[in-house]
Amino acid sequence: MSIKVAINGFGTIGKRVADAVDAQDDMEIVGVTKTGPSFGCDLAVKKGFPLYCTFDEPERIARFAEQGYECHGGLSDLLAIADVVVDCAPGKMGAENLSKYQNAGVKFMFQGGEKHALTGLSYTSSANHAENLNAQGTRVVSCNTTGLSRTLVPLYEHCGSLKVECTMIRRAADPGDSKKGPINAIKPVLKVPSHHGPDVMTVKPEIEINSLAVAVPTTIMHLHSIIADLPEGHGLTTDSILAMWRQTPRVIIMHGEHNRITTTAEVMEMARDIGRKWGDLHEIFVWEDGVELIGNRLYYFQAIHQESDVIPENVDCIRALMGTEPDWRASVAKTDAAISAYYNC
Amino acid sequence: MSIKVAINGFGTIGKRVADAVDAQDDMEIVGVTKTGPSFGCDLAVKKGFPLYCTFDEPERIARFAEQGYECHGGLSDLLAIADVVVDCAPGKMGAENLSKYQNAGVKFMFQGGEKHALTGLSYTSSANHAENLNAQGTRVVSCNTTGLSRTLVPLYEHCGSLKVECTMIRRAADPGDSKKGPINAIKPVLKVPSHHGPDVMTVKPEIEINSLAVAVPTTIMHLHSIIADLPEGHGLTTDSILAMWRQTPRVIIMHGEHNRITTTAEVMEMARDIGRKWGDLHEIFVWEDGVELIGNRLYYFQAIHQESDVIPENVDCIRALMGTEPDWRASVAKTDAAISAYYNC
Amino acid sequence: MSIKVAINGFGTIGKRVADAVDAQDDMEIVGVTKTGPSFGCDLAVKKGFPLYCTFDEPERIARFAEQGYECHGGLSDLLAIADVVVDCAPGKMGAENLSKYQNAGVKFMFQGGEKHALTGLSYTSSANHAENLNAQGTRVVSCNTTGLSRTLVPLYEHCGSLKVECTMIRRAADPGDSKKGPINAIKPVLKVPSHHGPDVMTVKPEIEINSLAVAVPTTIMHLHSIIADLPEGHGLTTDSILAMWRQTPRVIIMHGEHNRITTTAEVMEMARDIGRKWGDLHEIFVWEDGVELIGNRLYYFQAIHQESDVIPENVDCIRALMGTEPDWRASVAKTDAAISAYYNC
Amino acid sequence: MSIKVAINGFGTIGKRVADAVDAQDDMEIVGVTKTGPSFGCDLAVKKGFPLYCTFDEPERIARFAEQGYECHGGLSDLLAIADVVVDCAPGKMGAENLSKYQNAGVKFMFQGGEKHALTGLSYTSSANHAENLNAQGTRVVSCNTTGLSRTLVPLYEHCGSLKVECTMIRRAADPGDSKKGPINAIKPVLKVPSHHGPDVMTVKPEIEINSLAVAVPTTIMHLHSIIADLPEGHGLTTDSILAMWRQTPRVIIMHGEHNRITTTAEVMEMARDIGRKWGDLHEIFVWEDGVELIGNRLYYFQAIHQESDVIPENVDCIRALMGTEPDWRASVAKTDAAISAYYNC
Repeated sequence: MSIKVAINGFGTIGKRVADAVDAQDDMEIVGVTKTGPSFGCDLAVKKGFPLYCTFDEPERIARFAEQGYECHGGLSDLLAIADVVVDCAPGKMGAENLSKYQNAGVKFMFQGGEKHALTGLSYTSSANHAENLNAQGTRVVSCNTTGLSRTLVPLYEHCGSLKVECTMIRRAADPGDSKKGPINAIKPVLKVPSHHGPDVMTVKPEIEINSLAVAVPTTIMHLHSIIADLPEGHGLTTDSILAMWRQTPRVIIMHGEHNRITTTAEVMEMARDIGRKWGDLHEIFVWEDGVELIGNRLYYFQAIHQESDVIPENVDCIRALMGTEPDWRASVAKTDAAISAYYNC
Repeated sequence: MSIKVAINGFGTIGKRVADAVDAQDDMEIVGVTKTGPSFGCDLAVKKGFPLYCTFDEPERIARFAEQGYECHGGLSDLLAIADVVVDCAPGKMGAENLSKYQNAGVKFMFQGGEKHALTGLSYTSSANHAENLNAQGTRVVSCNTTGLSRTLVPLYEHCGSLKVECTMIRRAADPGDSKKGPINAIKPVLKVPSHHGPDVMTVKPEIEINSLAVAVPTTIMHLHSIIADLPEGHGLTTDSILAMWRQTPRVIIMHGEHNRITTTAEVMEMARDIGRKWGDLHEIFVWEDGVELIGNRLYYFQAIHQESDVIPENVDCIRALMGTEPDWRASVAKTDAAISAYYNC
Repeated sequence: MSIKVAINGFGTIGKRVADAVDAQDDMEIVGVTKTGPSFGCDLAVKKGFPLYCTFDEPERIARFAEQGYECHGGLSDLLAIADVVVDCAPGKMGAENLSKYQNAGVKFMFQGGEKHALTGLSYTSSANHAENLNAQGTRVVSCNTTGLSRTLVPLYEHCGSLKVECTMIRRAADPGDSKKGPINAIKPVLKVPSHHGPDVMTVKPEIEINSLAVAVPTTIMHLHSIIADLPEGHGLTTDSILAMWRQTPRVIIMHGEHNRITTTAEVMEMARDIGRKWGDLHEIFVWEDGVELIGNRLYYFQAIHQESDVIPENVDCIRALMGTEPDWRASVAKTDAAISAYYNC
Repeated sequence: MSIKVAINGFGTIGKRVADAVDAQDDMEIVGVTKTGPSFGCDLAVKKGFPLYCTFDEPERIARFAEQGYECHGGLSDLLAIADVVVDCAPGKMGAENLSKYQNAGVKFMFQGGEKHALTGLSYTSSANHAENLNAQGTRVVSCNTTGLSRTLVPLYEHCGSLKVECTMIRRAADPGDSKKGPINAIKPVLKVPSHHGPDVMTVKPEIEINSLAVAVPTTIMHLHSIIADLPEGHGLTTDSILAMWRQTPRVIIMHGEHNRITTTAEVMEMARDIGRKWGDLHEIFVWEDGVELIGNRLYYFQAIHQESDVIPENVDCIRALMGTEPDWRASVAKTDAAISAYYNC
């Protein structure tokens, strides 16, 4: 029996989660919400996703019909037929939405724009799938935290302890965002250390981590500059760490010089070439020639596609909440196979 | 019987033409060339396109096998089995390649990076398909000329004469290009008027046109700022021009304010949303609220996706050279239907 | 006797006008306003400009002392001792400020962010100095209009009529502005034609002009792409037009190729080299090799330093309002000599 | 008696060093070199710096006269009348120029584009002025190394040991450079750790330091994200470190939030406001609210004006080589007072 999934907020993240859910054989989209008629409604119609209004007021629902869109009702109507709702609303609406979900008795998932405190539980596939099994609700962590989790958790699993510093060089705006700057500047996050790194501890508290963050005038990817101190007796080498990551789901290792992928621009071009919809890259990209273990200190760079790396985690998280797949590796394999068959031409 | 198409140069344009040809039922890719083993070879392998070396030297061909790629021979071998070769080599290699194609007796198509003088014949679907029927070789004009042709030819067909000035605000580098600038400057093309506009006259000599051009620090699209003087008695209005373009193939009209598509960033986001591979937009984008006819002078903006607008013209051009479809509108409809069925999810 | 000048708003324009006024021997700064204590107050203190509060409320005035700045009073106090106030407040506060100035009986000058309708009179040095003589108040037009006026007015004076189209490629944010985008897009102004060009007619109604405008991700200069239709019998050549502009105050003609000044980046670098404060360029920059007269149609590019080209016009405008220098050329010469002596090292 | 200084290469660094030397009362510019006639020659003429040709060939020297510039001879002629030559030639010409300087018997200073191995001696004012006293030649380290030296040396002097990691977020091109990209990407330096940090050890070998580096699409400043591990018993607090830096020459501490200087754009705007020529900022900028000591680990950001922070070090270095001022603090005070009197309006 198929899991019935509602998407509350059919924007940058919502439209991608909907597509990824639609590609799975054990779940289906029962509806997506928009605040009003707009181009995003055409996408939902084209994909065959039933359209609902973010609000319950009849006059807001009526506006869709005026623009020629069939609207199936308000958020309450959608929640009534869903097993789980994926909240992809803009940040800071969490508390208000949470009570709606709880009242409707539906399971719920928030995104990384909300704080851990809202749900008291967070999620990434490799860090704590088991902890989220059959929970009523959780939060899929941000793109940055997901990215750190992907490469740090296997390191931690091997070493038993890990102390990390990360400088996060963040894209200032998404590609489709034409209002935000800066155009020609670097903007440091003056809260030091920043909140980004420590957020990893919401899914894997044993990893000690701090971060500094800056925003730069690019739209396509974040880049992490990472220093990880391994404990004595770790037994790893640069090569064995690379081998470990090559076995890790949703991590791509490529050689910058040999593959002529020397910047985030070429990483994104590679993603377009492999045929993912929107040119997305669900995987974390690590440059083989940018990894170096010196003594117990590991240096590496990784690039994060901020629009999409959390998408497959959302699918896995649905299975965790519904308790239908207790093995995280099995869920990851299933999710990724379906997405790959679906998207790639 | 399927037209056998060779792609000489499997890069930004070549990989897209190959995909588009592959989507048609009346033509097939018999091979694509690379100068040596690289990530692009994986793409060809994945798509099932036979791989050839751009050069005939055995030692260069042998390098592919060393990296684990099956190479079927040199360019000569490929030309020997092709009906038509689409030259997607970097600019300025035209003269050298032309003689190879002529010696092999294969039909040939160059891209807009080469000059009209190389072939003495140029092509866009709507302007001069008939003129190219059964020709031995031609040049598919550049992304900018193709874009101008799309909106100006129907205007010219209606009016019988047209005098145009265009300021071309050009992207400085493609998205996957990480070396070119400028980062924070505007660069005027100091040849005044520039060569860009008059290139339209290679496919439709009756349109009088000049242009000025600048490069700006963006990677995603060109934008044309156009002034067209219509002859007395044209009988058109802003609305009837919009209606004409709505009927024109490969032109998209959308309302900037209503659809919240106010910059090239949002145009590209829309293209990603509709599911084209690489997030491409084959159509020329015209802002409905950016078109205004005042007396006999028409003002409008259009945005050009420099990586992809010429792709469907290449497919049509193959049919023109092979003489298999004399009606340009029929070819366009066939090309676009196949691409749309193929790419969109 | 020195003209007593108040600056209402000591920001991007205000600080520059204050410096330029301070460099003249026939006028002096009697005070500048700030909304509250900030780094801009240090600048005023360092230059010896008496500091006033933009508001009259005692509690707002008191805040300055709390941060260690001596504040001489509110706006009313400043207006009481001034002959003329230069309004450099953020746009859209015009109507409110106008009544304050009128009530105080002080002469007033607004900037181009306000509409012509506010004052019913506008100003550029070369277009209509005489018309502004002894007026009670006026508006110094925007950087773009000032730039167009500089090169078009002498053309008009020679030809007797002029019909102009301009595509304005505008910087999206000022260099010190770190919030505005877009980062990687081109944004057309979808009001077609745009309001920019026709604003020239507020100072020289005889010039027929329309414009299209786009914003691009650069911070340093605007660039105008201009087409001007001269009347029959104009008697000009490309060379004679260049010669005319070389005689025109506040226009710089340089050769892009010979001087290796091929983008706005190098224009600004030249401005830094000649030692103007803030790296300003008061002059309009025209590329010698970007000017071409073909028949009666003139094509040219010009670059506009949006932060500073109106600064010397503000000085001349003070003299116009006060009636102290009826000859615009004499005022321009006096203004520029003083600025040059003052700033250049 | 005035020290006679030659500048070999009157470009981005050379023109600034020349101006700074010219502002001192104990040294003078006896000549600057250019490879040929260009706009840079006008600057030299305007400043009254005698012009020489980078080459000794008579035909190259003759070209200057053809363009109306008085050229006083070739490099050999200039070296013959100089006490010390400041090499500001493009990188990688070091070895060739070194032999010329040695043959001429003149003292010499290279810039950070050359390797330490060329001279075997490097210089920053606060780290090792004494070590450079009366040396025949040395290398003033790069802008990044100079910046690190400014804040780390006093920390080291206090603590006796220091272990540092730095992620360097580098501007991709200088403001006047219109060719280099990337426009929309982040480019990691795939040599890990990078060479930048360890270069500090050429002037202060006792500081243990590594670095990672990326280039980003901005032109105005580098930004350093720094983690410094202090030894046990350091006795410092966040506040006492800020107090130490406030006493350190050529370091500026400002509060990002209170002064509304939240990005490198506003830092540069502040530099323009204080009236330095070219809008330069010789000081290293540290955000007060971006410094945090947690246990023994210090986190901070600093911004580096890549075009100018080494300029005052060059002046001090001249005194070191000539042995005229053995006390680095005295030299720094003298240099900065002269520059400040000279530049600021």
